[in-house]
Amino acid sequence: MNVLSYRPSPRDLSYTFGGRAAVAVIRPGTIVEMFTEDCFAGRVRSVEDMPSRVCDFPFLNPVTGPFHVEGAEPGDTLALHFVSITPARDWAVSATFPHFGALTGTHATPMLAPPLDEVVWRYDIDVERGVVRYHARRSDFTAELPLDPMHGTVGVAPAASEVRMTIVPDTHGGNMDTPELRAGVTVYLGVNVEGGLFSVGDGHARQGHGEVCGTAVEAAMDTVVAVGLIKGVVTPWPRMEDDGHLMSTGSARPLEDAYRISQHDLVTWTSELTGLDILDAYQLVSQIGEAPVGNVCDGNYTMVAKLPKSCLRGADVYGSAHERLRALGRRYLARR
Amino acid sequence: MNVLSYRPSPRDLSYTFGGRAAVAVIRPGTIVEMFTEDCFAGRVRSVEDMPSRVCDFPFLNPVTGPFHVEGAEPGDTLALHFVSITPARDWAVSATFPHFGALTGTHATPMLAPPLDEVVWRYDIDVERGVVRYHARRSDFTAELPLDPMHGTVGVAPAASEVRMTIVPDTHGGNMDTPELRAGVTVYLGVNVEGGLFSVGDGHARQGHGEVCGTAVEAAMDTVVAVGLIKGVVTPWPRMEDDGHLMSTGSARPLEDAYRISQHDLVTWTSELTGLDILDAYQLVSQIGEAPVGNVCDGNYTMVAKLPKSCLRGADVYGSAHERLRALGRRYLARR
Amino acid sequence: MNVLSYRPSPRDLSYTFGGRAAVAVIRPGTIVEMFTEDCFAGRVRSVEDMPSRVCDFPFLNPVTGPFHVEGAEPGDTLALHFVSITPARDWAVSATFPHFGALTGTHATPMLAPPLDEVVWRYDIDVERGVVRYHARRSDFTAELPLDPMHGTVGVAPAASEVRMTIVPDTHGGNMDTPELRAGVTVYLGVNVEGGLFSVGDGHARQGHGEVCGTAVEAAMDTVVAVGLIKGVVTPWPRMEDDGHLMSTGSARPLEDAYRISQHDLVTWTSELTGLDILDAYQLVSQIGEAPVGNVCDGNYTMVAKLPKSCLRGADVYGSAHERLRALGRRYLARR
Amino acid sequence: MNVLSYRPSPRDLSYTFGGRAAVAVIRPGTIVEMFTEDCFAGRVRSVEDMPSRVCDFPFLNPVTGPFHVEGAEPGDTLALHFVSITPARDWAVSATFPHFGALTGTHATPMLAPPLDEVVWRYDIDVERGVVRYHARRSDFTAELPLDPMHGTVGVAPAASEVRMTIVPDTHGGNMDTPELRAGVTVYLGVNVEGGLFSVGDGHARQGHGEVCGTAVEAAMDTVVAVGLIKGVVTPWPRMEDDGHLMSTGSARPLEDAYRISQHDLVTWTSELTGLDILDAYQLVSQIGEAPVGNVCDGNYTMVAKLPKSCLRGADVYGSAHERLRALGRRYLARR
Repeated sequence: MNVLSYRPSPRDLSYTFGGRAAVAVIRPGTIVEMFTEDCFAGRVRSVEDMPSRVCDFPFLNPVTGPFHVEGAEPGDTLALHFVSITPARDWAVSATFPHFGALTGTHATPMLAPPLDEVVWRYDIDVERGVVRYHARRSDFTAELPLDPMHGTVGVAPAASEVRMTIVPDTHGGNMDTPELRAGVTVYLGVNVEGGLFSVGDGHARQGHGEVCGTAVEAAMDTVVAVGLIKGVVTPWPRMEDDGHLMSTGSARPLEDAYRISQHDLVTWTSELTGLDILDAYQLVSQIGEAPVGNVCDGNYTMVAKLPKSCLRGADVYGSAHERLRALGRRYLARR
Repeated sequence: MNVLSYRPSPRDLSYTFGGRAAVAVIRPGTIVEMFTEDCFAGRVRSVEDMPSRVCDFPFLNPVTGPFHVEGAEPGDTLALHFVSITPARDWAVSATFPHFGALTGTHATPMLAPPLDEVVWRYDIDVERGVVRYHARRSDFTAELPLDPMHGTVGVAPAASEVRMTIVPDTHGGNMDTPELRAGVTVYLGVNVEGGLFSVGDGHARQGHGEVCGTAVEAAMDTVVAVGLIKGVVTPWPRMEDDGHLMSTGSARPLEDAYRISQHDLVTWTSELTGLDILDAYQLVSQIGEAPVGNVCDGNYTMVAKLPKSCLRGADVYGSAHERLRALGRRYLARR
Repeated sequence: MNVLSYRPSPRDLSYTFGGRAAVAVIRPGTIVEMFTEDCFAGRVRSVEDMPSRVCDFPFLNPVTGPFHVEGAEPGDTLALHFVSITPARDWAVSATFPHFGALTGTHATPMLAPPLDEVVWRYDIDVERGVVRYHARRSDFTAELPLDPMHGTVGVAPAASEVRMTIVPDTHGGNMDTPELRAGVTVYLGVNVEGGLFSVGDGHARQGHGEVCGTAVEAAMDTVVAVGLIKGVVTPWPRMEDDGHLMSTGSARPLEDAYRISQHDLVTWTSELTGLDILDAYQLVSQIGEAPVGNVCDGNYTMVAKLPKSCLRGADVYGSAHERLRALGRRYLARR
Repeated sequence: MNVLSYRPSPRDLSYTFGGRAAVAVIRPGTIVEMFTEDCFAGRVRSVEDMPSRVCDFPFLNPVTGPFHVEGAEPGDTLALHFVSITPARDWAVSATFPHFGALTGTHATPMLAPPLDEVVWRYDIDVERGVVRYHARRSDFTAELPLDPMHGTVGVAPAASEVRMTIVPDTHGGNMDTPELRAGVTVYLGVNVEGGLFSVGDGHARQGHGEVCGTAVEAAMDTVVAVGLIKGVVTPWPRMEDDGHLMSTGSARPLEDAYRISQHDLVTWTSELTGLDILDAYQLVSQIGEAPVGNVCDGNYTMVAKLPKSCLRGADVYGSAHERLRALGRRYLARR
């Protein structure tokens, strides 16, 4: 079993997709153990650390990578199976960042009112018990919420020689901020450049739908990814698969366009997988499809379109990449 | 126990909220048994019945009602607890209606391409087994989907002397098309006129998130509602409650504004119920709130914002109207 | 010459399109002289009169009418030629109304920040010199701006038995708030009910594009309209014509949908008028069409699509209704 | 007078902002004479040349540059005065490009209908007479339209190490596609990297508002730019100035956000220039501001907010950069 263990120092972190040499070259079938910093680059540690002071734009939302996958070429698809996502610390933070979030004026939706107060919340993480603890800042209210670790950001180098800040999701992936991206899920990303050059970051101990205040329960993570390569198959937008579901994503504004992209991809993908006529697939997805909201706060908003695989009558999905990578992940876990 | 049984003839159906005299006057605490026709007014019965031919605009999406609730005045809130929603026939239909749906040009999002083909699908409903059966039209593919009955449309007479087609959701309710509106849920609607004048319609045997093709598994329903009245409490947008969750809705375009409305209402409502500072409530909802999509095809799009009641530490919600109406509904069901 | 002079008392004003009996019945070819109140129902007279205190929701944006046009039936088109629009007072007002305007949170785009300060500006109107004078409230800055009178609101009773608040523009017209609706323009409105039932209101001494703060230079008007009826011609969205241009309107959210509706109507209308293939018309409008912004603050946003008539090579527009009504208006003015 | 004459060979053209070394280093005060290719890289020459065949994605919308301006540093502003923009050929082309344009499904607003027909139009340009001639493709209809040359694309290297395709407008400029960018206008662009690295391209012989079909009258240009540098002044979004007006731009989706950004920038800029309180400036812009539409077809939509300088009472705009560069341009033209 090929296992690469990679722990970046702060200056190894990336802040873009594209525009950066690989930190490692791996073969398909490799297990990558990686550490990912939180979206504040680890600089917000207490409720006194205001992000607008301790963080240094554009050095936000760092990712670990990029990793070059041998043999990956434009027109192929990378398959990244998230074997495990484990909080690396016993705390996490969240914040109202000025001019960021869905219920405040932002740089893209400017308002004349002053920004909301900048406030930081610090959560306790109890991995054993599977909970995070919320503490109100202006009263003694606390609440235990289920731990549900995920990665907000995963992607590859963009097409057309672009270099993009990690914080904006688009066809190459990026900061989709969907809670669906948890352990047990395989992410499919279309390859745009030699090696694909994937990176991962922005762990969340948990997140609500839409990340309405602009930040989740932001946490550094110890994450294990099983890496696969599917030759000669194009993936137009990031897709995901878990044991029970297929998922398409769309990232755009306004939010209905993110919905349209994700549903359109799911309808056409379902039609390809099952041989259903396109209108028959449209009808089927209309009645059984789900549409979990990703983010409604980033540069593009993200929607997920989700279909139970039980509808597919055994159709072959990416040559069973998910099943193979899951099996690889289980062997890895069993060995550990 | 006050029980009103009401079965409208076709000419008793309403096609607007407002602008129509009550079909019955009821006291708070009444159980209403009603029949609701499907969104095609029952005229689409086979795959040969094209909605654009057999239906007669604006006579689409009929509702049963309105019902006048004694004592309801502007500034009050109606509480409608859905005791049961049962398909009234063993079949249902769905269709691609020209210039309607999220993946086609529409009257509000016009395109130069011709409309998609108009196609009708007929579903078998098996209440006993709890399934609906999908039949592809252009192949022999079929699939069993879980039966999950709901009402797309519920609302009251609008404010400001308005009369609105039933098909557009807004502050008064209307065609929200959220699968969350199933049996066991209490809907809260702000009263705008004497008696409130609520109506119910547009049953779906099941529906995907967003109703992407524009129609669900459209079914006539036998529905039982327990009616409550909460005096002196204003409800700005339709809200819902079930045993585990509070829900706020928002209906608007673009979709992010429906999201904003629903999340804003949930944040301010949570703050009121718990005494949390507004930013503390914003943070809590950001991490634990859900955002099930209602519709992304109607005149306004609908989003739901949903919070587990376990976060509320026992706060009183509408004077426990949900619990009281649920108990009433159970007594009714036990008696039947 | 049939001339109707109509001056409503405050209690004669209408606050809806639809839902109200005609104030007068007129024959096609009639000249109507009418007084229209300002959008605040005349209650904001000084900078001390806060709209949120002196106005009484929903009694905002009153219109004068409705007028029943003899012979008008669904499927016909009303042609309203604005002969003159003259400020009725030597002052006008504007205001930042709480939760209204494009750069503040609103009921449809809610934000957690408090509303902007409510401030009233009073303008001097000098009809003779053709100017309005702006006075800053928080300094002694003043500016003379060109007087350019227009009506924000014109419409007919809606289809489908709807009754709509005057403040929301839609297919029936309403509060489009386009500065293009000035004297010399003929407005075409599709008839939905017997008599058409048109109303006019919301005069502006002038307005910027989009009415960004939510209100214009709001003024009562003495307005003269020449009324025509075009039998058997359907008009899907309000259209306008002046001596040099055809104009289509679209009112929707998001703003690109208002743009799409107006451009789509202009492209298909141009194709019908000239016999151009639809893609040829699309191309022509793409290169020579204008797109003046109406409002970006009301319940629906409004865009106008505008084409020089010189492109039409003499095509007949509504049977030369504009030319005939303009001639009628000129005879009226000459007689006065 | 420093004059740089630069004519790129096809392989010198750039397809991104950022990510490319300068083609020349110039001092502030330089006149740059440049040739710019059309958006199809000159490959569409007749109505038989289908863009989807003869063009090679991502090699669309080439720009000439980038030019390094000596002394330009992050926090400064480049001032680019367009002295002249002259069609370089006696023809231009336009096209319906599949999945591009405002009235068709696109990659960002996907629909299930097939794309519109791909059609090319070839225009004759007569610089002397100041006209372009449109020829319908499916009839013998022709029309003369006013020649009104402009550049769709101008911008600098983006911030945050990003590299962006030229076709998407954002804070760094890019493909704004506003007809306001004609000769006589000074464009202000905030500098993000050493030297600023500006490029210019995508000439249009003329363009309608919004570029509704997705392409304008696309033409190669001989263009002359007078280059200035304003030290220590930040420009958040591209701005423009001509002899009569200030202009702010905003590029975003949905279109109302592009409107908000441009109006917000114009309101705050007006407040800074005049000393007006922000709400007083909001009011003034609301009544006298214009909002010419740029594009409603690119990756971000663009709106312009425009204010007559007569409102400013002589306020100093960028240290009179426009006047100085205009004077420089006139000396250049006189000499020629």
